[in-house]
Amino acid sequence: MVQIPNTPTSADVARLAGVSRATVSYVLNNTSAVRISEATRRRVHEAARELGYVPHAAARSLRAGHSRMVLMPAPAIPVGPLYSRFLNELQWALGRLDYTVVQYGSVGLEGDEAARAWAELRPVAVLVPGAGLGPQGVAVLKRSGARAVVTLGPGRVEGAHALLMDHDAVGHCAGAHLYARGRRRIGVVLPGEPGLEVYSRPRLAGVREALRGTDATVTELPLAYTEEAAAERAARWTASGLDAVFAYNDEYAMLLMRALQDEGVRIPEDVAVIGADDLVLGRLLRPRLSTVHIELPSGQDLAELVDRAVRDPGGEPEVHTVLGASVIRRESS
Amino acid sequence: MVQIPNTPTSADVARLAGVSRATVSYVLNNTSAVRISEATRRRVHEAARELGYVPHAAARSLRAGHSRMVLMPAPAIPVGPLYSRFLNELQWALGRLDYTVVQYGSVGLEGDEAARAWAELRPVAVLVPGAGLGPQGVAVLKRSGARAVVTLGPGRVEGAHALLMDHDAVGHCAGAHLYARGRRRIGVVLPGEPGLEVYSRPRLAGVREALRGTDATVTELPLAYTEEAAAERAARWTASGLDAVFAYNDEYAMLLMRALQDEGVRIPEDVAVIGADDLVLGRLLRPRLSTVHIELPSGQDLAELVDRAVRDPGGEPEVHTVLGASVIRRESS
Repeated sequence: MVQIPNTPTSADVARLAGVSRATVSYVLNNTSAVRISEATRRRVHEAARELGYVPHAAARSLRAGHSRMVLMPAPAIPVGPLYSRFLNELQWALGRLDYTVVQYGSVGLEGDEAARAWAELRPVAVLVPGAGLGPQGVAVLKRSGARAVVTLGPGRVEGAHALLMDHDAVGHCAGAHLYARGRRRIGVVLPGEPGLEVYSRPRLAGVREALRGTDATVTELPLAYTEEAAAERAARWTASGLDAVFAYNDEYAMLLMRALQDEGVRIPEDVAVIGADDLVLGRLLRPRLSTVHIELPSGQDLAELVDRAVRDPGGEPEVHTVLGASVIRRESS
Repeated sequence: MVQIPNTPTSADVARLAGVSRATVSYVLNNTSAVRISEATRRRVHEAARELGYVPHAAARSLRAGHSRMVLMPAPAIPVGPLYSRFLNELQWALGRLDYTVVQYGSVGLEGDEAARAWAELRPVAVLVPGAGLGPQGVAVLKRSGARAVVTLGPGRVEGAHALLMDHDAVGHCAGAHLYARGRRRIGVVLPGEPGLEVYSRPRLAGVREALRGTDATVTELPLAYTEEAAAERAARWTASGLDAVFAYNDEYAMLLMRALQDEGVRIPEDVAVIGADDLVLGRLLRPRLSTVHIELPSGQDLAELVDRAVRDPGGEPEVHTVLGASVIRRESS
C-alpha cells in the first residue's frame, strides 16, 4: 500500500508562513479590503507553493455565498462540429470574464429533477440547451443561489432568460425552397437516433407551415442512420411518388442520396434532396448537396448576457432570437 | 427590480419540521448510524419539499471530506461520433455507480496549471484525456483529495492509472496495409486544425515505424480542412509521384479523394487512399473508402476502474492498453 499524502490546509500554510489563517485567506483570495505588506504576501504565496496548497473552490463559494461556476448540462446526443465550435467559443469568452464553465453529465435526469441535481453544485449561472426545464426548475435553481438561468431552446420559460433557437425556421426554409423548385410531394426524414426529436419535430413542423395552403403534401419518413435502412427506404421510393426530400441534416441527406442513386433514382431530376448544417462533406458528393445553413448564437454574446445577468439578477429576463437559417442551393435540388 | 427569493437553509427546514438541524442533516444525508423514526423522516422530507430546499453538494463534500464528483476536462477540439458515444456510455456507467460526472472547460489552461484549477473543485477522481498532465499535476490532485487520477493517452504518468491509447498503432496499420498493397511512395496527411497534433504525430510515427527498413518513403502532407487546400494539394499531386496516402481520418480522406478525382487522378489505380474512424459516410463515396477502424475502451470498464481506484486509493496504478486498430479494406486502396 502506498501512503496517501495528507491534504495541506490553510492552517499548514499559516504555520509555515508564520501568519494567521485569516491572513492566508486574505492573501490567497486577493482581498483588497485589508492592507497586507508585500513581504507577507510573498511569504504566504511561497508557503502555499511549497506545501502544494490548493484553495477549495467549494469552501470559497460557501464563504462568498456564490461561485463563479457556470453550469451547462452536457449534451446527451452526439454534437456536430457547429455546436462544438460554439461551445469552445463560449468557454473562452466566459473564461476571459473569470467564470469557470462546468458541463454536467445529466444523462438519465430530466426536467426539474435535473435542475435539483444542478442546484446542488451552487452554480452562479446555468445554461440549459434544449427543452425540458420548467418554471419550477428555474425556481429551484434561483432559490439555491443561481443568479442567472438561460435557456437555449424553442420557447421561453418563466423566470429565465431565453435564447430562442427556432428550429421551425430550418424546416420552413427547406420546405419553401423545395416548393419554389416546383416540387409538390415532399418527404421529411425523421432521424432514428434517440434524442434528436427536440430538433426533428420542429423542423418537420416548419416544413408543414411553409406548405400550408398550397397543393403540396408532406410525408414523414422515419429513417435509421444505417446503409441498410437507407437502401430499404430507397427501394420503396418509386412507389411513394415523392419528388423531393428534406433529410433532417446533411448526414442523413448524404446517406439517403447515395441509396437513391444506387437504385437508379436521378438527383435532382427525379428527386430533389436538401440537408441542413452546411457540412464540408456535402460539397464532396456529386451532385453537390443543397443545404440549410444554420447560424448559432455567438459564444461571446452569450457570455456577455451571462455576465450582465449575474451582475443584475433582479433585471427583467432577456429574450433573443438567435438561430439564423438560410438555404444554400447547390446541385441536388 | 424583481425580488430574488432567499435560499432556504437547513435551519429553515428544521424550524418548519420542528426538529434540530442535526436531525435534518441526518435525514437528508440518509445517515443510517442514527435511529430516526419514520414519522420524523417524513416530516423532514415534507418540509424540505415545501421550502424547495436543495442540499449543498459543496458543504456535503466538505463534511464528508470528499465528493462523488468525477471530473473530466472538456475536450477543446471537435469530438467525433466515436468519442461522443464513449463519453455517453461512461457517464451512464458512472451514474449507475452513484458518481456525478463533471466536464471542466479547461480551454486555455495546460498541464499542471490545469491540474491546480481542477483540484479546486475537490473531485474524488479525475480522468484526463490526451497528454500534458505531469507527475506534479497528479500529486497536486492527490494532495487535494482526489483518490484516483486516470490518464487516457499515449503514455504513463507517475502516480496515475493509465489507459494507454496508442495512436501509433493506427498509423502502423495504415502504413503496413498500403505497403502490402504494393505502394512505395506514401503520403501522410497532417491535419491543419489546431489541437489534433496529439493524434496526428503518433499516427505519422506509426506509419514510419511500419515502413522502417523497407524501400518505401514517407512524405508529410500538411492540409487544412477546406476544399481550396485540398484542390491545391491535388493540383501538385502528379509532380509529387506519391502512389498512396494515409489521410489522418475519414473526413480528410474524403476531402482529398474528391479533390484528386476532380484532377483526373484515379483511385485506387493511381493513388490508394485510406482514412481512419470508419465513418458511415466513407462508405457512401465511390470508390468506397478504406479505413482504420478504431476501438475505444468501453465506458463500463473505465467506470469500474474508477470505482475500484476510489475504494482502494493506495493500490498500485493499473495500466491497460485500450485502443484497438484494424484495417477495413474497401475500394479506395
